[in-house]
Amino acid sequence: MTKRVAIIGAGPSGLAQLRAFQSAANKGAEIPEIVCFEKQDNWGGLWNYTWRTGLDGNGEPVHGSMYRYLWSNGPKEGLEFADYSFEEHFGKQIASYPPRAVLFDYIQGRVEKAGVRKWIRFSTPIRMVTYDAKTEKFTVTAHDLVKDHMYSEEFDNVIVASGHFSTPNAPEFPGFNRFGGRILHAHDFRDAVEFKDKDLLLIGTSYSAEDIGSQCWKYGAKSITVAYRTAPMGFKWPDNWQEVPILERMDETTAYFKDGTSKKIDAIILCTGYKHHFPFLPDDLRLKTKNRLATADLYKGVSYAYNPKMFYLGMQDQWFTFNMFDAQAWWVRDAIMGRIAIPRETATLLADVKAREVGEDAGVDTHDAIQYQGDYVKELIAETDYPSFDVDGACAAFFEWKEHKKDNIMTFRNKAYRSVITGTMAPIHHTPWNEALEDTMESYLRN
Amino acid sequence: MTKRVAIIGAGPSGLAQLRAFQSAANKGAEIPEIVCFEKQDNWGGLWNYTWRTGLDGNGEPVHGSMYRYLWSNGPKEGLEFADYSFEEHFGKQIASYPPRAVLFDYIQGRVEKAGVRKWIRFSTPIRMVTYDAKTEKFTVTAHDLVKDHMYSEEFDNVIVASGHFSTPNAPEFPGFNRFGGRILHAHDFRDAVEFKDKDLLLIGTSYSAEDIGSQCWKYGAKSITVAYRTAPMGFKWPDNWQEVPILERMDETTAYFKDGTSKKIDAIILCTGYKHHFPFLPDDLRLKTKNRLATADLYKGVSYAYNPKMFYLGMQDQWFTFNMFDAQAWWVRDAIMGRIAIPRETATLLADVKAREVGEDAGVDTHDAIQYQGDYVKELIAETDYPSFDVDGACAAFFEWKEHKKDNIMTFRNKAYRSVITGTMAPIHHTPWNEALEDTMESYLRN
Repeated sequence: MTKRVAIIGAGPSGLAQLRAFQSAANKGAEIPEIVCFEKQDNWGGLWNYTWRTGLDGNGEPVHGSMYRYLWSNGPKEGLEFADYSFEEHFGKQIASYPPRAVLFDYIQGRVEKAGVRKWIRFSTPIRMVTYDAKTEKFTVTAHDLVKDHMYSEEFDNVIVASGHFSTPNAPEFPGFNRFGGRILHAHDFRDAVEFKDKDLLLIGTSYSAEDIGSQCWKYGAKSITVAYRTAPMGFKWPDNWQEVPILERMDETTAYFKDGTSKKIDAIILCTGYKHHFPFLPDDLRLKTKNRLATADLYKGVSYAYNPKMFYLGMQDQWFTFNMFDAQAWWVRDAIMGRIAIPRETATLLADVKAREVGEDAGVDTHDAIQYQGDYVKELIAETDYPSFDVDGACAAFFEWKEHKKDNIMTFRNKAYRSVITGTMAPIHHTPWNEALEDTMESYLRN
Repeated sequence: MTKRVAIIGAGPSGLAQLRAFQSAANKGAEIPEIVCFEKQDNWGGLWNYTWRTGLDGNGEPVHGSMYRYLWSNGPKEGLEFADYSFEEHFGKQIASYPPRAVLFDYIQGRVEKAGVRKWIRFSTPIRMVTYDAKTEKFTVTAHDLVKDHMYSEEFDNVIVASGHFSTPNAPEFPGFNRFGGRILHAHDFRDAVEFKDKDLLLIGTSYSAEDIGSQCWKYGAKSITVAYRTAPMGFKWPDNWQEVPILERMDETTAYFKDGTSKKIDAIILCTGYKHHFPFLPDDLRLKTKNRLATADLYKGVSYAYNPKMFYLGMQDQWFTFNMFDAQAWWVRDAIMGRIAIPRETATLLADVKAREVGEDAGVDTHDAIQYQGDYVKELIAETDYPSFDVDGACAAFFEWKEHKKDNIMTFRNKAYRSVITGTMAPIHHTPWNEALEDTMESYLRN
C-alpha cells in the first residue's frame, strides 16, 4: 500500500487516528504511510498545558485553552477509551472528575503503549493545503519551526484534527477601549489565583462561564457577575455570585447592564465561545459550520461532502469526546483503507448531512441531545472493529451528571459513577472539589 | 503600464508606499496597479489601537503592540514627514512627544489628503506568496475575512510592509507554570491601570522595559523590578524602582534572581523583544535577519537579494521611523517604475549588504548608530524626488534626546525640539509627562 495520509494535529482526535491505524497494523493489516503534523512541541492538543497566552514561543497562536486548575466538567465514565480503561492506565479505579494533569496522563498512556509518537512531526504547523483534481492528490505545505524550513508534500488523504476550541469568538462591547482592567477571552484564562479578591465580570452562559466562574470562586474571587444575553444559567450559585442581563457598556471602572443596574469590575472574561478556524484551508476544502451536533457538510460527521477524501474529526459540539473521536477515527481509517465505501454522489453525502440535522433538530432538550450523540457513536462503532461498549450506560452517566449539577453546581464533582468499560464503580474523591485547592496528579490519585 | 504591485500591510511603511506611488501619479507619471492587503479593518498598523490581546475578532493574531497611554519615546522632530509637517496637519506647532492618538491622527492626515484608501483591501490577511521563475510573477493568496473567501492573484512585485514588532519573542523561565499571577509579553500590555498598586517584574532592558515600566510607575504601580541579563539600563530611577540580575526561577508568588535576592511579585511582563515573522512566505522569499540597522539580505536595505522583485520596508532596527519608511518607499517605487536600476548579480547585491554590515559594525556607540542610520536615509533620499530635509538636524535632535533621558528618564518628555521641516520650535507641553494622566488628543493639543 503506497497511500500517504496526512493528519493535522496530535490532540485527542489526531491521537485517536494514530491509534486507529496502529491498531489495524497490529492486527496484521497493511496500512498507509501516516504523517501527523503538530504545531506544538508535544502531543495532547488542548491538554498540553502552557502558561502562555496569545502567541507561543514560535510566534504561532497558542493552541491551548486549558486553565491551570481545570477538572473534567463531565464524568470520566462518559469519555473512557473502550480499548484502554482508566484502570488499565492507573492500575486502579480513580474518582470521576479528574484534573487536567490526570487526564493528560491517561491520554498519553494509550499512545505511548501504541508506539505512535514516531509518526508525529512536532513544531510543524500547516501553512496551506491544496487539492489537485487531476492527480487526485493533496499538497500539504508545512513549516518546520525548528529548522525554520517550509516544505510541501503530497498525500492521498488529509484528516483535519486541529480542534475547534482554540480560536476565540470575542465580541466587543462599548467602552472596552476605556475600561482600565484586564479584558480576556476564556481562551487566555490560566491561573485563577490572579483573580483572588477581584470583582469579576463573565460574559456568556455556557461551559466556560460556568466553569471559569466556579474556579475563580473556589480560589477566592471577591464576586462573580455573569451577564447573559438570552437567559441565565439558573444554577444555585453562592452568595457572592449573581447573574445579570447583558452588558450594555463599560466605563473606566464600571459595567452597566441592560436592566439599568451597574457594578464596579476589576476584570472581564469573555466566555463567548470559539470559532471553527482553518486559515490553512482554501475555500474548496474549508469546513464552515456552526458549533452543533450535526455539523454542516460532513458525511457521517467526518467526510467532507465536497471532497470525501478529506476528513474532519471532532468538529461537532460535544457531549461525547474521547470515545467519539475514537469512533470517528476508526471509521475514517476504514474509509481510507477501503473497508468502508463512501458514496460517490455529493447529493447522497449531503442527504446524509441533512438527515442528521433533522435528527438533531427533532430533539427538545439536553436529554435528547445526549442520546442523539450517543446514537451517532453507536452508529459509527457498528461499522468498524472499535471495541463495542455500553454507550447507553455512558449516556446514563451524563443524565445523572446533569441532575447532580442541577442539585448543586459546587458539589457535582464529588459524585462517582460506574465505568461502562470495566464495570467497576469509581471511588468518591478524598476531598470535596471546592476544598481541593491542591490538585496535582499525585494528590488526586491518593485514594 | 500593466504592472501589478502587492503591498502587504497598511501601517506606517505600507502607507508610505501608497503615498509614494500616489505622489508619482500626482506628478503625471503612469503608475502600476497597486493592491494593498491589510489584516486589520483600519489602517495605521501598530498605531491602530485595540483593547484586544492574543487573537483578534477574526481569530487572527493581533497586530498591535500599542498600549493605551503610550507617548512617543523619541522626539517627533526625528520622525516628521518631509512632505507633510505637523504644522500642516494640526494647523500649529505641537509639543515634541505626542501620545499615541495624536501620532495616529498625524499619520492618517497625510494619506487621507493623498486619497489612497481606495487601494487598500481591509480585513484581508495574506495566507501565502509564491514566485514562479518561468512567468516571473508572484501569486499572492489572500483571505477576505468579511466574505470568508480565500483567493489568489498574480503580481509583478511584492512589497512586505507587515512590520516586525508584532510577534513576541517570549522566553520561558523555570517556574512560570507555577506562578499564580499574570505573565504577559509587552505585546499584550494594554492599560497601566491594571497594574496599579502591584509589584511588577519586567524582564529585559530595551525600550519596552524602559517605557512600560515608566508608564506603570506613572499610573501607580507599587514597585517596578527590572531583571537584566547583561547590564542594567542605568537610568536614575524613582525610589520604588530597582534593577536586578536575571531571573533564575519563580515559585507561586516569588521571583528569585541570580544574585540570590528574591521579591514577591504580582505580575510579570516579558520585555524581551520581537521576531521577524512571515508565516505567509516560503523559504525562497522569506527574510531571515536579526533586529539590526544593517538587515541581512536586503540590497539598499529594501530589495531582497535572492529575488530583487521582492521588497521589504522598515525591517531595520529603528532610530529613524516614518521618514526612513518614506525614504525606502520612494526608492522602492522608483526601482519598480524603472527609474532606479537594481544590479542583476546576486553577488553584487550581497556585497552591498556586507558593506552595510561592516559600516554598522564600525560604529562604537549609539551616537554612531544614529548617524549611521541618518546617513542611510540621506543615501536613499538622494536617489529619488522625496523632499530633501535636514537629516543631520534630526540626528542632532536624537543626540539631545539621549542626553535628556540620561539626565532624567522621568522628565525627558517635557523637552522641546526644533522641526527640521518647518524650522519652528515646538512648545513645551502644558503638563509634565508624569502628571499628564489624561492624554487624549484634545487635551494634548490644548497648547
